[in-house]
Amino acid sequence: MDFSQPPSLQALLDKISQFVESELFPLERTFLLEGFNAVMPGLAAARERVKELGLWAPNHPTEHGGMGLDLMQHAAISKELGRSPLGHYAFGCQAPDAGNIELLHQFGSPEQKERWLDRLVSGEVRSCFGMTEPQVAGSNPNLIECRARRDGDDYVLDGQKWFTSGADGAALCIVMAVTNPDAPKYQQASMILVPTDTPGFERVRNTPVMGHAGEGYFSHSEVSLRDCRVPVSALLGPEGKGFTLAQTRLGPGRIHHCMRWLGICQRALELMCARAATRLIAPGEMLADKQIIRAWIAESAAEMQAAELMVQHAAWTMHIQGNKAARHSISMIKFYVAGVLQRVVDRALQVHGALGMTDDTVLAFFYREERASRIYDGPDEVHKMSLARQILKSYR
Amino acid sequence: MDFSQPPSLQALLDKISQFVESELFPLERTFLLEGFNAVMPGLAAARERVKELGLWAPNHPTEHGGMGLDLMQHAAISKELGRSPLGHYAFGCQAPDAGNIELLHQFGSPEQKERWLDRLVSGEVRSCFGMTEPQVAGSNPNLIECRARRDGDDYVLDGQKWFTSGADGAALCIVMAVTNPDAPKYQQASMILVPTDTPGFERVRNTPVMGHAGEGYFSHSEVSLRDCRVPVSALLGPEGKGFTLAQTRLGPGRIHHCMRWLGICQRALELMCARAATRLIAPGEMLADKQIIRAWIAESAAEMQAAELMVQHAAWTMHIQGNKAARHSISMIKFYVAGVLQRVVDRALQVHGALGMTDDTVLAFFYREERASRIYDGPDEVHKMSLARQILKSYR
Amino acid sequence: MDFSQPPSLQALLDKISQFVESELFPLERTFLLEGFNAVMPGLAAARERVKELGLWAPNHPTEHGGMGLDLMQHAAISKELGRSPLGHYAFGCQAPDAGNIELLHQFGSPEQKERWLDRLVSGEVRSCFGMTEPQVAGSNPNLIECRARRDGDDYVLDGQKWFTSGADGAALCIVMAVTNPDAPKYQQASMILVPTDTPGFERVRNTPVMGHAGEGYFSHSEVSLRDCRVPVSALLGPEGKGFTLAQTRLGPGRIHHCMRWLGICQRALELMCARAATRLIAPGEMLADKQIIRAWIAESAAEMQAAELMVQHAAWTMHIQGNKAARHSISMIKFYVAGVLQRVVDRALQVHGALGMTDDTVLAFFYREERASRIYDGPDEVHKMSLARQILKSYR
Amino acid sequence: MDFSQPPSLQALLDKISQFVESELFPLERTFLLEGFNAVMPGLAAARERVKELGLWAPNHPTEHGGMGLDLMQHAAISKELGRSPLGHYAFGCQAPDAGNIELLHQFGSPEQKERWLDRLVSGEVRSCFGMTEPQVAGSNPNLIECRARRDGDDYVLDGQKWFTSGADGAALCIVMAVTNPDAPKYQQASMILVPTDTPGFERVRNTPVMGHAGEGYFSHSEVSLRDCRVPVSALLGPEGKGFTLAQTRLGPGRIHHCMRWLGICQRALELMCARAATRLIAPGEMLADKQIIRAWIAESAAEMQAAELMVQHAAWTMHIQGNKAARHSISMIKFYVAGVLQRVVDRALQVHGALGMTDDTVLAFFYREERASRIYDGPDEVHKMSLARQILKSYR
Repeated sequence: MDFSQPPSLQALLDKISQFVESELFPLERTFLLEGFNAVMPGLAAARERVKELGLWAPNHPTEHGGMGLDLMQHAAISKELGRSPLGHYAFGCQAPDAGNIELLHQFGSPEQKERWLDRLVSGEVRSCFGMTEPQVAGSNPNLIECRARRDGDDYVLDGQKWFTSGADGAALCIVMAVTNPDAPKYQQASMILVPTDTPGFERVRNTPVMGHAGEGYFSHSEVSLRDCRVPVSALLGPEGKGFTLAQTRLGPGRIHHCMRWLGICQRALELMCARAATRLIAPGEMLADKQIIRAWIAESAAEMQAAELMVQHAAWTMHIQGNKAARHSISMIKFYVAGVLQRVVDRALQVHGALGMTDDTVLAFFYREERASRIYDGPDEVHKMSLARQILKSYR
Repeated sequence: MDFSQPPSLQALLDKISQFVESELFPLERTFLLEGFNAVMPGLAAARERVKELGLWAPNHPTEHGGMGLDLMQHAAISKELGRSPLGHYAFGCQAPDAGNIELLHQFGSPEQKERWLDRLVSGEVRSCFGMTEPQVAGSNPNLIECRARRDGDDYVLDGQKWFTSGADGAALCIVMAVTNPDAPKYQQASMILVPTDTPGFERVRNTPVMGHAGEGYFSHSEVSLRDCRVPVSALLGPEGKGFTLAQTRLGPGRIHHCMRWLGICQRALELMCARAATRLIAPGEMLADKQIIRAWIAESAAEMQAAELMVQHAAWTMHIQGNKAARHSISMIKFYVAGVLQRVVDRALQVHGALGMTDDTVLAFFYREERASRIYDGPDEVHKMSLARQILKSYR
Repeated sequence: MDFSQPPSLQALLDKISQFVESELFPLERTFLLEGFNAVMPGLAAARERVKELGLWAPNHPTEHGGMGLDLMQHAAISKELGRSPLGHYAFGCQAPDAGNIELLHQFGSPEQKERWLDRLVSGEVRSCFGMTEPQVAGSNPNLIECRARRDGDDYVLDGQKWFTSGADGAALCIVMAVTNPDAPKYQQASMILVPTDTPGFERVRNTPVMGHAGEGYFSHSEVSLRDCRVPVSALLGPEGKGFTLAQTRLGPGRIHHCMRWLGICQRALELMCARAATRLIAPGEMLADKQIIRAWIAESAAEMQAAELMVQHAAWTMHIQGNKAARHSISMIKFYVAGVLQRVVDRALQVHGALGMTDDTVLAFFYREERASRIYDGPDEVHKMSLARQILKSYR
Repeated sequence: MDFSQPPSLQALLDKISQFVESELFPLERTFLLEGFNAVMPGLAAARERVKELGLWAPNHPTEHGGMGLDLMQHAAISKELGRSPLGHYAFGCQAPDAGNIELLHQFGSPEQKERWLDRLVSGEVRSCFGMTEPQVAGSNPNLIECRARRDGDDYVLDGQKWFTSGADGAALCIVMAVTNPDAPKYQQASMILVPTDTPGFERVRNTPVMGHAGEGYFSHSEVSLRDCRVPVSALLGPEGKGFTLAQTRLGPGRIHHCMRWLGICQRALELMCARAATRLIAPGEMLADKQIIRAWIAESAAEMQAAELMVQHAAWTMHIQGNKAARHSISMIKFYVAGVLQRVVDRALQVHGALGMTDDTVLAFFYREERASRIYDGPDEVHKMSLARQILKSYR
């Protein structure tokens, strides 16, 4: 076993880390107090500088303008970027575009790639991913209700989606829809590329989440598809392979998310320590002198170390042995890291007292928005059941 | 021991509970999506009906227009009202007015009462309480920096306050300020009545809390006092007795808060059960059939039962033996019930999945706003230390 | 609501508490280091003094030599006695005799009472209760396998029991056996009185529990019944009513157990505080000066207060409204109090460091033996499911 | 980063694992029910077979008869051995001999090595380590009271030790004693080799721990040193360097302990799964079908994975960068892994129900004996404080 990082990667991480601190941290206040649109100009300028520095789209293929880094390298970067809620966007590797680009790159037809890939990687346009539906449990893919009926050379889509993140302002939506209702249950759905200006594709509203409807990239929309007609050539990959593609997309996506969460933890721990070290609570006594605060710092550091090693191990397994071999590991990190995230942010907030409740630090944002980490891409409980089922197989 | 409630109280609670469900629950959606001002007309109408039903201001003295109920009775009511974020306001017993009214009633001069009490109790005007300061730890009252300098027949106040809840729109602020800097440390501060239109009293901003600056009653302001001059007759109670008065105010206040939190828990448990019982997760299988969900329901119910009995016991102790005898109990309930609140709301949110993150239920509001419960009126950790110190006394 | 205890009860509790401290604490060392038989002479003497003081068998009927106290009074006493592992035995109200005596008193025939009751209440003989079986889940009463076949005027019992507590040295065993295998599932079993000298009744071994086979009263036996013949008159209560009788027995039994556990918590908290207050960890610094220790003390005190009120409430509900109305409450206290017990004892042990691992305090005994509290009389998880099922009924 | 194990190591681990299962698991029952002495003959035979297989003393230098494996390799082996309480002893790498051998190998004089090393490595004799004292907090090394006074060419030792593990039957004790009371605080103590047959060295008793005084290797003794005279040549390493040597010993020792604990976790998880998969709880329903059980299995697996990676990382850091660089990591694993151990064993016990309380499985032994893991080598809390202090340094 060898836990060392190559020095070249370490240098890259340092460079990115400094950029995040010096260029993105200062934008956060505007973002927190005035919203995403208010920070768009600042972010556009930051994106230009990222491109000039050759740091753009670290995870995307070089032939489309990215850095072409592998899963383990990008995982390390994702942590650095995660320290700011603006990190991934500023570096052109934000979800859900990142996953969509991967799908197009792996499964897109030449025309699909031609039409979308360069523009998506460059950040000229954005995309969204229409999978989750309000009426059925997202954790059970068999329950998907959106239909894509074949009609001549077209598919006609009808259905309802929500939590379609970033739909507000997106040019493209990759929609999961049932094309083959009579096929075996994991072969009923397909992925279909639906430009958002297609008639019948309607963004109903940005769902208010934790007090905010959000706007633009930072929003989660409810989307209605009514008689929404796209040509058969809009099919992404083979018909009926929607779940297979989704699985392909989810594995690395969970690595990225988990490392992003660890970046959040890192930031929270930094804020927690900085606050504790400078907050006077009695004459001559700092908050950091208190044992309970110290216990929280130590417990957070230990859990974060444990979590990071688990994610790196999962990334390594996926990198060397493929997605399937990494299934256990992916289930594990999904619920374990989400738990660490919630505990660390909660402690950091508590250390800040009333200030932690305000938007004068980024902690309250993390606290409320990242509560979703235990829910999306499968709630904790579903991953635990899946993992246990696999473990128990050898005991039956 | 006798755990029974008198039938008359039970009838009253049922009546209030029904009102909350039928009249206030329907207003919540507007409140959550559009803010407090948007729901003001609906609330004003609800307040009128509450008055017509003879349920107004249950905790306030009958001579000023309230129902004159005792601490234990009002505690039970506070739980019913807590099921909606609009409950206490609709019934005229919202913080911080409730505490301020108690202070004025107990310690106000005849002129002070004459000027303020009826108008506050009736809801004609609102008040706020200026204690917490941004630069010093709220948990240590000795660190208060706001000064009230005696100048002839006036006090001249200078200082900075924040988390002055409801200052936006309030007519009166009860300000805690140091009048006697050379006195022993718990006898330095006094409470002073400062009308908010006094020159030098400025509401700087509504501090953004969990993503929202809020508005009107639902807001927490930063307040600046600069050469703010009030007559000596504005002193509430004796000079130097600010902390004593604050203690008087805090005891029953914590009972009310804790019972309000238990109302929130009750609502969260109801939503959790209702969701679980109706959410299909696989053909023929409901979420409520799942063991993990059932464990959460059982654990929540047990913790809530434990918490409620503790609060009732603390209220009873305070009622029978006075504030001082109840000190242990008050410290206990403060951190214990806040912990139950956080766990129960967290579970209810998780049971709702993505929906729990949205503002289509009230859970996300409770999740983010009530995180403050572990902080205000003394963070959990301070109460634990205080309780342990008292327990350890007999072992030294 | 009224949380006061009558002064007469309080005086009784004080008297008992002093006896436990002065007479039983000193016997514990011999018990811990040398076992139950070694402490028997000391206990016999203590029992005599208890009788002289008129404190014998507080829960048993006066006509059979007890004090005749009601459920709530005995609950309070049970906590005092629980502070020592020898408490209940010394006062003649130890399980399983206490439950057996209740059964005999309520359901026994005149001959059965005549033969057993006085001798059991006086402590002249002991009894055991044969319900749990090694091959089937104790939490599912339908799975009971021991059979009692009717043969003329006799029952012939065949089966295997374990965790028959106190069988070693007992004169009587109340055996749960299936008499009516074709009846509906909760009406198949009956309770049968089997003197332990009946041919075919064999104590196979004392099962080693947490490192010790135990001896005499402090042991849990495996019992074999082979062609074990008793007259039909040995039936306790009606045939097929075994489960009904068991339920009757379990309700108050759980109250007693929970209060006993709270006595253990009380003792653990006392030891924790005393140790912390006297253990020097650095020049001039006591363990009790440490925040983490204080947090544990406070959390323990709060949880114990919560737990005690819950148990008292459950006892009150059962006392006023009967066993059935108290079902929710009984499920709640069973798992909630067992959890508190484990946490408090664990903290107390940790505060003692290496000493906590030794048998030089009673903590290591509590730590290992009382781990069973989360298992017997239904594991935590079974009680949680039962409670949740009842709560969810109104949401279907 | 590279998480792969070399195939040769994996083959070795498989061989050891099979030996543990086939040769040691069958000995456990005798050990659990009759004690260590009863299992000595079986263990002696097992040791012979281990030697024949060339697996003896994996961590010890080849020149003294060991396999000479490095820290990371032995860590992996330690986990396999940890699955049985007899594993380390059977393979000749049991504590405290392992640490003592390391000390002698690194710091012993030629005569000391000559006299002790081969005999200790071969298992011909055993040793113990006399550090902890009953009257002072083990977590604070400054408080050590045992004195070694220089008298001519001798040291004369006086003091009291306890938790001297394995003293019963040991030939040698390495005693930590103050030789230089006036030196700076971390330079006062020295390590001195005291043969246990030295006049004045007395094993007072085997301290009863969790119900058992133990015997032979499985015991923890109280040791008295009275006028105990050894020649100056018995000094191990330089005078006044006792703490430095102890630190050297502790680092790798904690790696070994943590991996041993992970072996226990592995065993507990195996037992938990096997029990769940075969225990019928209702007709047609296995315990393993229950969601709560599955959640425990998944949580245990995740925590164990996290813990193992942390320990491997700490071992790697120590291996590559030395003890000092690994200080953070060592503090982390000490408390983190001990916590995982306790939770996993607790869950496994609960899954076994009443059986889990008995000594018919090894779980009850793990439950009670390994409670010490959170205490020895520094309680959790001390390690947390130490880690936090180091983290906070960069924020001051």
